[in-house]
Amino acid sequence: MANRLDDEALDQLFRNARTHNGWIERPVEDDVLREIYDLAKMAPTSANCSPMRVVFVKSAEAKARLLGVVSAGNQEKTRTAPVTAIIATDRRFYDELPKLFPHTDARAWFVGNEAHAEKTAFRNGTLQGAYFMLAARALGLDVGPMSGFDNDKLDREFFPDGRYASNFLVNLGYGDSAKLFPRNPRFTFDEACTIL
Amino acid sequence: MANRLDDEALDQLFRNARTHNGWIERPVEDDVLREIYDLAKMAPTSANCSPMRVVFVKSAEAKARLLGVVSAGNQEKTRTAPVTAIIATDRRFYDELPKLFPHTDARAWFVGNEAHAEKTAFRNGTLQGAYFMLAARALGLDVGPMSGFDNDKLDREFFPDGRYASNFLVNLGYGDSAKLFPRNPRFTFDEACTIL
Repeated sequence: MANRLDDEALDQLFRNARTHNGWIERPVEDDVLREIYDLAKMAPTSANCSPMRVVFVKSAEAKARLLGVVSAGNQEKTRTAPVTAIIATDRRFYDELPKLFPHTDARAWFVGNEAHAEKTAFRNGTLQGAYFMLAARALGLDVGPMSGFDNDKLDREFFPDGRYASNFLVNLGYGDSAKLFPRNPRFTFDEACTIL
Repeated sequence: MANRLDDEALDQLFRNARTHNGWIERPVEDDVLREIYDLAKMAPTSANCSPMRVVFVKSAEAKARLLGVVSAGNQEKTRTAPVTAIIATDRRFYDELPKLFPHTDARAWFVGNEAHAEKTAFRNGTLQGAYFMLAARALGLDVGPMSGFDNDKLDREFFPDGRYASNFLVNLGYGDSAKLFPRNPRFTFDEACTIL
């Protein structure tokens, strides 16, 4: 049976971790990007459907394409981040289910039921995006997630064949604590939860 | 600057953790439920919108109500789990933004834009659901997330005023490894990711 992680680990993952807007000058190596994904991929999705796809925007040329679709308030932090991950979703994730969930015909649950497929893709791709951010923190990186960009424009630029849909963006690097905003309040347990 | 967590912690959170279907006879105290939430609430949401609401179903009477809406394949594991969390979303989360994101009128971004509000609620409530599961694992618990239930029926039973929408369910407890299914495959980095 597992124990609880020590307080230092809980602080790093949750309590002291912050959404970063500025970055120190330290690159993020490709091996670290691989490690983030290889942790995140293990966490659960419905019927193991694993709809998240990730584009790591790292080169100056790719970053310039991305900056063309990011809102004004997100320009500077995205430009200066060592890497920006596009967290996207495979709209046709169900075509992979014979491989990912081989013991039954799970593909049949989604073919011809677009509303159910779309909701399943969005829910599970988003779960994986959260796993991705906590995996990055577990490896000592800081993250800066963003919804402020033009999804349709991004999809036309990076996913022209229409199969993948952008969900949100995550700046990745080592945060500069001097550039943090003050922390906003959270709901208490009793405001957000009930025990029945 | 943070270090990477040790391998034991990474195994517990990601690599060795499993979706559990059977539970040993050990209760989950209310203090632990509070602790899960108090970790999960700190992780990021867009404009700090924090739309997740949680109902912890623990008593025999509440569990019986929940079993009335859960699919056949999820009955036994839900019945035997010490606690089942209903991960729900507040459809009117934006009414709380003056408190949660006080430095600008973020409520105005959503009022009268139902499609944007609904997508923001679902995306961020789902991120919080993932944080919740990893917080539970960080505290030494096992989780068993489920989408196999009737959302509309659950909402009528537990959220009759229509403000909250069920997202997914999470069984919580200490897993019985003897009842695990074999692990399904995951996409490799090169199948799911690109570095540009």
